[in-house]
Amino acid sequence: MSEPKLTHFDESGGARMVDVTAKDPSERRAVAAGSVWVGPETYRRITDRSLEKGDVLQVARLAGIMAAKRTADLIPLCHPLPLTSVSVEFSLVAEDHRVDIRSEARVTGKTGVEMEALTAVSVAALTVYDMCKAVDKGMVIGDVRLMRKEGGKSGVYEREG
Amino acid sequence: MSEPKLTHFDESGGARMVDVTAKDPSERRAVAAGSVWVGPETYRRITDRSLEKGDVLQVARLAGIMAAKRTADLIPLCHPLPLTSVSVEFSLVAEDHRVDIRSEARVTGKTGVEMEALTAVSVAALTVYDMCKAVDKGMVIGDVRLMRKEGGKSGVYEREG
Amino acid sequence: MSEPKLTHFDESGGARMVDVTAKDPSERRAVAAGSVWVGPETYRRITDRSLEKGDVLQVARLAGIMAAKRTADLIPLCHPLPLTSVSVEFSLVAEDHRVDIRSEARVTGKTGVEMEALTAVSVAALTVYDMCKAVDKGMVIGDVRLMRKEGGKSGVYEREG
Amino acid sequence: MSEPKLTHFDESGGARMVDVTAKDPSERRAVAAGSVWVGPETYRRITDRSLEKGDVLQVARLAGIMAAKRTADLIPLCHPLPLTSVSVEFSLVAEDHRVDIRSEARVTGKTGVEMEALTAVSVAALTVYDMCKAVDKGMVIGDVRLMRKEGGKSGVYEREG
Amino acid sequence: MSEPKLTHFDESGGARMVDVTAKDPSERRAVAAGSVWVGPETYRRITDRSLEKGDVLQVARLAGIMAAKRTADLIPLCHPLPLTSVSVEFSLVAEDHRVDIRSEARVTGKTGVEMEALTAVSVAALTVYDMCKAVDKGMVIGDVRLMRKEGGKSGVYEREG
Amino acid sequence: MSEPKLTHFDESGGARMVDVTAKDPSERRAVAAGSVWVGPETYRRITDRSLEKGDVLQVARLAGIMAAKRTADLIPLCHPLPLTSVSVEFSLVAEDHRVDIRSEARVTGKTGVEMEALTAVSVAALTVYDMCKAVDKGMVIGDVRLMRKEGGKSGVYEREG
Repeated sequence: MSEPKLTHFDESGGARMVDVTAKDPSERRAVAAGSVWVGPETYRRITDRSLEKGDVLQVARLAGIMAAKRTADLIPLCHPLPLTSVSVEFSLVAEDHRVDIRSEARVTGKTGVEMEALTAVSVAALTVYDMCKAVDKGMVIGDVRLMRKEGGKSGVYEREG
Repeated sequence: MSEPKLTHFDESGGARMVDVTAKDPSERRAVAAGSVWVGPETYRRITDRSLEKGDVLQVARLAGIMAAKRTADLIPLCHPLPLTSVSVEFSLVAEDHRVDIRSEARVTGKTGVEMEALTAVSVAALTVYDMCKAVDKGMVIGDVRLMRKEGGKSGVYEREG
Repeated sequence: MSEPKLTHFDESGGARMVDVTAKDPSERRAVAAGSVWVGPETYRRITDRSLEKGDVLQVARLAGIMAAKRTADLIPLCHPLPLTSVSVEFSLVAEDHRVDIRSEARVTGKTGVEMEALTAVSVAALTVYDMCKAVDKGMVIGDVRLMRKEGGKSGVYEREG
Repeated sequence: MSEPKLTHFDESGGARMVDVTAKDPSERRAVAAGSVWVGPETYRRITDRSLEKGDVLQVARLAGIMAAKRTADLIPLCHPLPLTSVSVEFSLVAEDHRVDIRSEARVTGKTGVEMEALTAVSVAALTVYDMCKAVDKGMVIGDVRLMRKEGGKSGVYEREG
Repeated sequence: MSEPKLTHFDESGGARMVDVTAKDPSERRAVAAGSVWVGPETYRRITDRSLEKGDVLQVARLAGIMAAKRTADLIPLCHPLPLTSVSVEFSLVAEDHRVDIRSEARVTGKTGVEMEALTAVSVAALTVYDMCKAVDKGMVIGDVRLMRKEGGKSGVYEREG
Repeated sequence: MSEPKLTHFDESGGARMVDVTAKDPSERRAVAAGSVWVGPETYRRITDRSLEKGDVLQVARLAGIMAAKRTADLIPLCHPLPLTSVSVEFSLVAEDHRVDIRSEARVTGKTGVEMEALTAVSVAALTVYDMCKAVDKGMVIGDVRLMRKEGGKSGVYEREG
């Protein structure tokens, strides 16, 4: 009995974009999440900013949204997709000095939008790093993961925690 | 006594690219690292591939290198830099089913290349995710962090662990 | 009674791409216009060129068309759209030393193509500036505006003048 | 006596990128400006936003900065330049319901950065349009012009008004 | 009787993107091919590599696939298309020291994907050149041509040889 | 005695961007050439156009120049370079119905510009194909090769024929 394949490779091991021509377009949605752990002082400043003018997070949000649109440029075997929605949201977790990032991407298309949501989270996190690195080089980006995926033949995927 | 500032904001809180015109170019180098935790089955396949044809990791490596070159396109307030070197390397940690990624970027320029190295690691990790997601949606990307930074006025930064 | 909203913001004021997933695709068309005011000498040269080899305007036309295709890369919250047509046209108004630019964009899609047409006009105008700036730094770009928009639920918009 | 040439054309009228290889790099700076005329209701909302969370203008500012970095991708014969600084600022002119945009770009390089500053202004203006177009299609972008240019052999250019 | 037109020009000779709005989307497929002639020593090394780790060709394959996705960014009057499949394959012809490249592109869309397949071949070939140029500057890229095209009103095109 | 290496690979066969950090910048220049063989009817039309309005070749010229600026985006292991000059020229060879393309690229930098010149030629050729393909699918692109290279330690390379 055959096992599921790493579909990005052809018979001889060459990388390839999976052929989705014959698939029917359907509504697809993916949610990804991730976090940035920052120092206490950096945390305070991001929070103050976001109370005042919301900036670090506003810049990171836009960077994430724009990056989602360029996913197929960045990830070699991703299909280009006409995204119909991308959002990026933040929550601040004071006890851990942590910025939580959550992104949702949607499309009516032939393949899923997991990579778009994950790319949005990653680039939003990198942007938080970039904007705070003058005061804190020790920040860590982590827990970048797919939370939920809907649409297409494989049905719903939901991560536990 | 004034505290160090979030230099990406002007007096009135507007985002801005830090002005580095007056700085002298110098040799700069940054090393970043990160990891992808995969399932045991996925781990086995990545390993097999890399023994045979090296593919998942070869594709991820190229994606990381190419993304480093586009850092200024992705991170809103990053300066464009004529990178003189980017490398991406992997090590496989069997007991944790973990792929460790390490990137080094270099430039002779007026600002550092931390974001280039971190972007290379992040996009390499996303590419590992993309290439294995047909068999494993539960992978997690984490520990993305700056390991070392040299050059420029602020001197050497070295992360402990 | 609620007033129409700035739909690019969510409840808490965060920027977002408007979710158009549920919309039906329809044929959409937008026409934008704009002008470049140049000095008399520059005007003469553009005209001569266009009689001889049509160059300044040919280059500007291509720049406008290519920029329309990259609108979603430039405008943070624009949806990517598979444009089915873009054209850029010029008329020369001798008495004002003015180059008038008109662009039409079309798509079968879920959102309108106003930004594509406006981006084509703006980048065509910037290209005229670039190509003539060695002899005339005083050129002014203006009157960049939406002339007409068709398709989608909101129906036809037609600017008066 | 020969007149100054449209340097973007070769002898036979073919478009070309001007050869600046032999020039010495020097510090260069350009300031551009432009305006968006909006309806009174739109004006009020932009103002409210900018008092509360600054959003339309924050998004437009980032779009302008990011576009400046991609000038050479958009304007066919522009040289790629490693920008060392870009800023975009706004002032609100209540009596005219006008948003004034001002951008400054800097580089140490072989050619000037006028196009980078003008591109930043144009794309910031287009972004204002994009973000308000759901409530106001009649906005007009205009007065896009070079205000000042320094550095390089041709010396200082300063626009009067 | 009128002859077929160079459809990329309007009545007055201005370049334009052909308007395909009214066309129905259909499944389309194109196959292109091309070759790189290399020196005997270079040929030996590419072959050895591909037996060991497949690298020159793996890198070239990815470059070709990624370039296919950017065709509309490169070819001024190409329509942007949401590619559903791209593959790039190589065969090595020992007697001529020749690397043969073959690419297939597919889409469900309103225009054909010839340019995508041809762009994939060309950029894969350029990448072979880039990766071997330290040891061989005399390589030649040639025979880049459309082999087959299906879908759309014009029916099947098949090249003889 | 060791033989020259394929420098794009590290010890373990992983692809990498060659480290040029320690090199001194110098003036560099590369000339590449290539050809498009077209049908007699297509040849006549290109010629007529170029006598009248020069269009196919003007569009191809711009596409080539713009592509040269994006070489590092297309070729995975190419260094980004601040090009100081790119030109693309054509000559028409009536007896073979052939369009000859020649590109020169220049930079003051740490690595050569062969890939930029070759990319300009290739994309100009692809653009000729794109613009004529409605009337001629049998065109062939070939003889894409480096003609000359100057600057840097390795000195002058000149192709014979």
